[in-house]
Amino acid sequence: MKTIALILAYDGTNYAGWQRQSGQKTIQGTLEDALSKMNNAPTEIRGASRTDAGVHAEWQIAAFDTHRDYEPDRFKIALNALTPPDITIRHACDAPDGFQPRFESRGKHYRYWLWQGHYLPPMLIHRAAAVRKLDVENMRNAAQYLIGEHDFSSFRALDCQAKSPVRTLTRIDISTVSGPYDYTCADGNALIQIDVEGTAFLKQMVRIIVGTLIDFGLGMPAHKMRTILESRCRANAGQTAPAAGLTLVRSFSSLDDWINPSLLL
Amino acid sequence: MKTIALILAYDGTNYAGWQRQSGQKTIQGTLEDALSKMNNAPTEIRGASRTDAGVHAEWQIAAFDTHRDYEPDRFKIALNALTPPDITIRHACDAPDGFQPRFESRGKHYRYWLWQGHYLPPMLIHRAAAVRKLDVENMRNAAQYLIGEHDFSSFRALDCQAKSPVRTLTRIDISTVSGPYDYTCADGNALIQIDVEGTAFLKQMVRIIVGTLIDFGLGMPAHKMRTILESRCRANAGQTAPAAGLTLVRSFSSLDDWINPSLLL
Repeated sequence: MKTIALILAYDGTNYAGWQRQSGQKTIQGTLEDALSKMNNAPTEIRGASRTDAGVHAEWQIAAFDTHRDYEPDRFKIALNALTPPDITIRHACDAPDGFQPRFESRGKHYRYWLWQGHYLPPMLIHRAAAVRKLDVENMRNAAQYLIGEHDFSSFRALDCQAKSPVRTLTRIDISTVSGPYDYTCADGNALIQIDVEGTAFLKQMVRIIVGTLIDFGLGMPAHKMRTILESRCRANAGQTAPAAGLTLVRSFSSLDDWINPSLLL
Repeated sequence: MKTIALILAYDGTNYAGWQRQSGQKTIQGTLEDALSKMNNAPTEIRGASRTDAGVHAEWQIAAFDTHRDYEPDRFKIALNALTPPDITIRHACDAPDGFQPRFESRGKHYRYWLWQGHYLPPMLIHRAAAVRKLDVENMRNAAQYLIGEHDFSSFRALDCQAKSPVRTLTRIDISTVSGPYDYTCADGNALIQIDVEGTAFLKQMVRIIVGTLIDFGLGMPAHKMRTILESRCRANAGQTAPAAGLTLVRSFSSLDDWINPSLLL
């Protein structure tokens, strides 16, 4: 028995999220079906992040145990052949026996795209959320209150199961970008990119933070973010932003030093 | 009776192309169904470009006749409500009676995205074609033979119905871009953007040109493009590149002077 770790990318549009659910097409379920074929036995796969339905990933980490004495690359090639094109196995490598990506996580980088316009241009459908014109500078000022270690009770889903609501955010960068398609509006770039990094996240935390930042973009005074945070009450934060705008850009892990990025698909 | 012109954007992924076909979901058919509801009578819509299945548009032009004495904006709002989110009516305006977008076309701008990598990153699925690492400079040199007025018989689908194979290409720009998502590879940007403009196009002409340019990207000597063009034989050109990488960026028309771009969705 040995353990293989995978780096995965996927378009979450057509999946009911990471986690296996009976009767639903999920990322975990699709991978387990493919792996079980290869292993000729039911095989469980463990992921670093339980991404929601519709959320995308550029660098998710997962691991499984196998009796097959194949080289990791053989798993990569076979799994890419056995899964649909919206899931890609970018890398496969040997991992310590029983490797658990969730416990070996060293932080995560999420990205959210907001499109300032009445309609989503075709290239952004399923990849961004449409919003009115926002005050990006005010959003940046409000976001600063969230940096550091805090009780993020205001920014977790009501059914979040985590024991502690305390998490550490290390970065929230809010920029306007012109990609992917000459996306400019009358007074500049129409696409807002929000990069969020932290050691770990509560359920729907990034989406609730983004939904709240939209309220600041529409004019709520920046210092009110502190009040929302300190209230530790979900009802005081904004709406949960749509899943489609969110991508797990990278899940950092204890394996990172072993991975040569030039080997990645 | 009056005529209304529309500017449309759509994600072509889930459509069997522009043109109405019985039993298939198409852009024209979806718009006609919505319009017929509004007009309370079967209504035909005329498009400038018959885009293929899977091809996207940022600025397609269409027109229809109606007995309803509504302001154009009312059609825009109602049609956006009656069509799915992957079709957007960006603008509606009065047009000369019986306006025919195909005959009033003043040229078209198409864009194709090639991703140099083994897998398509999630944000590019249905929006680009995956290729090996290409020699962009050689592609540019080959493309120059196509600029100007030529018999493009080598670059038309075998079932193309156009009477004359002569068309004029005014621009083929090939650049590497970093959008939409930090898409770089070891030696630069991994995404190749091909912009093609011309007065009019034959069936699948842009996709066959792109498929042929890929051959030059892989090392065919640039001057061979002249041989392919002059042979006027489809079999000498390359494969038809996948539809998903192609977008109709803009259809120019005799209405352009009347349109205020700041009014567009």
